[in-house]
Amino acid sequence: VKYHKIPNETVRRLPIYLRGLMLLTQNGNSSISSRKLSEVVNVNAWQIRKDFSYFGEFGTRGIGYNIENLSSEIKKILNLNTSNKTALVGAGNLGSAVLSYSGFAAYGLNITAAFDNDPDKVGKKINGVTIEDVSRLNVLKRRKIDLAIIAIPGPEAQNVADTLVKAGIKGILNFSPCRIGVPKKIKVITIDIATDLARLPYYTASS
Amino acid sequence: VKYHKIPNETVRRLPIYLRGLMLLTQNGNSSISSRKLSEVVNVNAWQIRKDFSYFGEFGTRGIGYNIENLSSEIKKILNLNTSNKTALVGAGNLGSAVLSYSGFAAYGLNITAAFDNDPDKVGKKINGVTIEDVSRLNVLKRRKIDLAIIAIPGPEAQNVADTLVKAGIKGILNFSPCRIGVPKKIKVITIDIATDLARLPYYTASS
Repeated sequence: VKYHKIPNETVRRLPIYLRGLMLLTQNGNSSISSRKLSEVVNVNAWQIRKDFSYFGEFGTRGIGYNIENLSSEIKKILNLNTSNKTALVGAGNLGSAVLSYSGFAAYGLNITAAFDNDPDKVGKKINGVTIEDVSRLNVLKRRKIDLAIIAIPGPEAQNVADTLVKAGIKGILNFSPCRIGVPKKIKVITIDIATDLARLPYYTASS
Repeated sequence: VKYHKIPNETVRRLPIYLRGLMLLTQNGNSSISSRKLSEVVNVNAWQIRKDFSYFGEFGTRGIGYNIENLSSEIKKILNLNTSNKTALVGAGNLGSAVLSYSGFAAYGLNITAAFDNDPDKVGKKINGVTIEDVSRLNVLKRRKIDLAIIAIPGPEAQNVADTLVKAGIKGILNFSPCRIGVPKKIKVITIDIATDLARLPYYTASS
């Protein structure tokens, strides 16, 4: 089932809600009001209710949302209930940090392959994943890897993206500060940590 | 001047608009319609118009927004038109990647200090910044550093945050997967790359 008409901004918040719900479960909660969830995820309660309204009715007046049902529905919508194998390209500082990051598993995401063009890195193992030569990117289709993370400096990112598209990748998480051009059916999400840091002075200046 | 009533979600998008406007300026544009900006920044045109409506009227019918005026207004709102000195705590893989990242300057953000507890790292220089021992965090106030980036693994993050607050830090960009508790007047923005990767399967599954 593919859910249509969910705005991109709502899709962006769904994993954040999911993270909040996982935290609430860990703390022994089984249901939650939109107001209480609002405090955990730092999104307005009316926005939460509006976001959830795109995929049906979950809340019960006076009780709130059933956390287990809601989590499972969000996972279904995001397609996180199937295996999502991911390849990493670039095993420098950022790539190594991504490989060592332990937070993916909770979402059913697994980095199962990593590539670099540095012969000194090829063959080394980080967090159980052996770095392969970047010339081997064409194995991705055979290994049923649909997602890729680009963690290399700007100029080469487009070349890598072109190769990834040829290798059958459907979605790219891009850490390079460059815009990447890909065919329309490929989804690219760019993470620019500068845009996050750039929000802080709004809250901290003249306070 | 402090602009009130701008929702957090709008504040989150302002640096993204700013990045798009910088790109458009580089490409020789001087004005832009909300529809065209929408394509550059990947946010709905109505959402862009609504966001801009919080801080006045910028668009001219048939011409669009003046890019220079709009950029300068966004910078003013975000307090990016003053120097924003930032400290980094944690010079591991992620911290080193952050220190080497060249994208901050465009927003007037500067990482001017870096700290680690590893004696092998202390004294080394990355991108012109010398790593100092983490016991020296109390110098931040004297150096007029208001912002900090936490790039260390989970468990120690809270201790570091406590020390940063004592050292007069007003805003924290947190890369550790943990929730950090701070006094209410301190702003914490947490970056969890897993929540970004977790959006990709929504777009790529069954396509």
